[in-house]
Amino acid sequence: MTTTAVSSAVLAEALGRGIATERVVVDPDVIAGISADDAEWAPVGRAAVALRPRTEAEVAHAVTVCAELGVPVVPRGAGTGLSGGANAVDGCLVLDLSRMNEILEIDADNLVCRVQPGVVNDDLKAAVAEHGLWYPPDPASAPWSTIGGNVATNAGGLCCVKYGVTRDYVLGMRAVVGGPAGYGSVVRYGRRTAKGVAGYDMTALMVGSEGTLGVVTEVTLRLRPALRGTPRTVVGAFSSLVDAGRAVASVTRRGLTPSALELLDRECLQAVEDWKHLGIEADAEALLLARVDSPGDGGAMEAQGVVDAFEEGDPLWAVVSGDDAEAETLFAARRLAYPALERLGPVLTEDVCVPRSAVPEMLGRLVEISGRHGVRMATIAHAGDGNLHPLLLTPAGDDAARDAAQAAFEEMLDAAIGLGGTVTGEHGVGLLKRDGMRREVDPLSLRMQEAVKTALDPLGIFNPGKVL
Amino acid sequence: MTTTAVSSAVLAEALGRGIATERVVVDPDVIAGISADDAEWAPVGRAAVALRPRTEAEVAHAVTVCAELGVPVVPRGAGTGLSGGANAVDGCLVLDLSRMNEILEIDADNLVCRVQPGVVNDDLKAAVAEHGLWYPPDPASAPWSTIGGNVATNAGGLCCVKYGVTRDYVLGMRAVVGGPAGYGSVVRYGRRTAKGVAGYDMTALMVGSEGTLGVVTEVTLRLRPALRGTPRTVVGAFSSLVDAGRAVASVTRRGLTPSALELLDRECLQAVEDWKHLGIEADAEALLLARVDSPGDGGAMEAQGVVDAFEEGDPLWAVVSGDDAEAETLFAARRLAYPALERLGPVLTEDVCVPRSAVPEMLGRLVEISGRHGVRMATIAHAGDGNLHPLLLTPAGDDAARDAAQAAFEEMLDAAIGLGGTVTGEHGVGLLKRDGMRREVDPLSLRMQEAVKTALDPLGIFNPGKVL
Repeated sequence: MTTTAVSSAVLAEALGRGIATERVVVDPDVIAGISADDAEWAPVGRAAVALRPRTEAEVAHAVTVCAELGVPVVPRGAGTGLSGGANAVDGCLVLDLSRMNEILEIDADNLVCRVQPGVVNDDLKAAVAEHGLWYPPDPASAPWSTIGGNVATNAGGLCCVKYGVTRDYVLGMRAVVGGPAGYGSVVRYGRRTAKGVAGYDMTALMVGSEGTLGVVTEVTLRLRPALRGTPRTVVGAFSSLVDAGRAVASVTRRGLTPSALELLDRECLQAVEDWKHLGIEADAEALLLARVDSPGDGGAMEAQGVVDAFEEGDPLWAVVSGDDAEAETLFAARRLAYPALERLGPVLTEDVCVPRSAVPEMLGRLVEISGRHGVRMATIAHAGDGNLHPLLLTPAGDDAARDAAQAAFEEMLDAAIGLGGTVTGEHGVGLLKRDGMRREVDPLSLRMQEAVKTALDPLGIFNPGKVL
Repeated sequence: MTTTAVSSAVLAEALGRGIATERVVVDPDVIAGISADDAEWAPVGRAAVALRPRTEAEVAHAVTVCAELGVPVVPRGAGTGLSGGANAVDGCLVLDLSRMNEILEIDADNLVCRVQPGVVNDDLKAAVAEHGLWYPPDPASAPWSTIGGNVATNAGGLCCVKYGVTRDYVLGMRAVVGGPAGYGSVVRYGRRTAKGVAGYDMTALMVGSEGTLGVVTEVTLRLRPALRGTPRTVVGAFSSLVDAGRAVASVTRRGLTPSALELLDRECLQAVEDWKHLGIEADAEALLLARVDSPGDGGAMEAQGVVDAFEEGDPLWAVVSGDDAEAETLFAARRLAYPALERLGPVLTEDVCVPRSAVPEMLGRLVEISGRHGVRMATIAHAGDGNLHPLLLTPAGDDAARDAAQAAFEEMLDAAIGLGGTVTGEHGVGLLKRDGMRREVDPLSLRMQEAVKTALDPLGIFNPGKVL
């Protein structure tokens, strides 16, 4: 790992030899504005230069220059990450890929598309929908987050419970890499066929590696046919988080596969209502929202099955929603929960994921831990996956509250590990979960992972200090 | 890579220090019987010793010994592989994992199970079915092949077209590895939660790596709820392979997702009929078999949609089968096609996979290439995936026919690559597709893969010469 600091001027000059200078950013204020993601609590370094490349060749030139000068490369998309994975490190080049946002190809005959990394998730969804196709991964950040960022973190979302995560849709990619291929080389990983096992699955290795093994410059994605018909929504209201958790466990146990199974607690509903005035009455401690998208009478049976499963959690009420507008409002509230809570002050976001049968116990532990530390907590969850997002809220500038939240955060990670879970279901390790990951993952696995990192990036310039 | 030959006696003695001697096989005839898989044309080396471990500790001991002595380790399950991935290399230890065949846990509440690598695929299916669960990957070898072998090759099967391949079901594993962890160490990779992104996806890297990165000793698998209701079968008969291919392309283009879409040609049907006398009339050049498993009226609509898609290929006839027994017979014929053809002489099996829209063209190329080389060809295919298995049949002992088949084999690989496809959809690279893979995969990707191999197995003892 190189550590010699290179001046901004030297780096900018070297980049300018191969890239139009208007894409090279040296203004410290502008650089600072794109030096962090949404993980407010993660440390942010001071970048030397930022670059907004338009082409793969410019990315390759930048990586070549950085390798020569020993400058770290920190790639970023929209900066909606929640773990600090896109935060600048001192002296680095911030590589802002959001301008590489072209959809290169939509191949409806083969359910495949090729995109640049800066394409926004919802923009891709809209574009493929015109061809009768669907790109399922739907992180709550989908209106803003980019495919490159989604790939870097292996983003999940609401529909993963039925349709899988980003990794399940990435068939192949192009990336600017280093190491044995030579820094600044463009490599093709993967394929565009439905199946393929020619060699190691480098594509899967890249997905979720948070830019530590190279810079993704193009992604080949699998698509699905667009869904037919209108999905059904099942809503249940519960007088405690744990009751809602019991209902969630019952859904899995009964072999039901809704296309979303989301949980919101009263804090979340109230925060959205105070902000957006959607007309939601937050009259329960927890709400479960399930979506069933199987068409025809099969879907009707499945929706009723979800109601029956909810009944096992002793709900205040549980119904198949007869009102599409109301159902849409509730899902909108789910998507707005995070920004609504961010308005209230710095938010520390958990992303623990536990076996589904442990959801009730884990929800109980969250309540206990936050209560004991006196931390205000709001909980949203992809409950059907066991992926829980308790958000720890602190008043701005209150150091004691911040320390308490930090302590609660770490305890929650340990509780998840203790229940056979993981410290991060879909947000990535970044900076915030590095300690937690070291408590979760087998130390020998870490050693093997470090060996892979060293083999593929011996100079250690790709997003150093993240993940490992 | 170590090359000093170690005598069988020395190796057996060292193994016997930690393992009951009845599991250490030194009889050359017995060793020869488990030194190859079903890829008849791939070279087979002479193993020094074979071992039939019962425990992970025994595997660890064996790897430790082999690392000390510089002996290659070639793991195998049932030996049903079709690429030579399990073939012995000279002086190696054959590690027969078929006796490690315990199902360790079935967790119905979390749709997860843990198994040893020697569990037979169909045995696992039967065991989880008793809990109302389903393990989808269904290679045609499922009655014999093991989960360890399925993981090593990332096996596919009939239902992949809707439900994905082995990789999509492997959540985590235990493996005896080497390199930075130390040879003979047991490492835990992955997780057992529905989602998780804590660190690099070492599990995905291991799946499909054919034992070249370590020996898998336990697998944690995702399960699905058992399907409800009886699937519908759609059958279409065509007067040419290309017509059938046009019908296949139409299924994808219409956004239909059958749970199987298989193709058999007249040669296959005839071979099965001659062997098993199922009462199939092979009165067409090609048959398409589709299965639709969506329940209720949605499934009925989907089945009719498949018939409509088949009509675009100008079939002799295409119908939703009204006779479950007949449908079952046809799928049984599909599963029996490979062994039925093996009876006729040495079979060289292709496993090319092309984009689905290219299926008609690829089928045409297969007919042209086999015809030009005068090679007898029978074709079975997971057509809905674009994964085609033309089988090249040669009379035993006919060297000229063998050479012609070999030439046709390589031309077919090139044709697939030329159409944007891959040389292996699901069988693995092993020995038979190493040259083809080098023509397909980006040379820089190969360099990166070799770096991973060297980082994780610097002694090069894990299944050397396979894949890379």
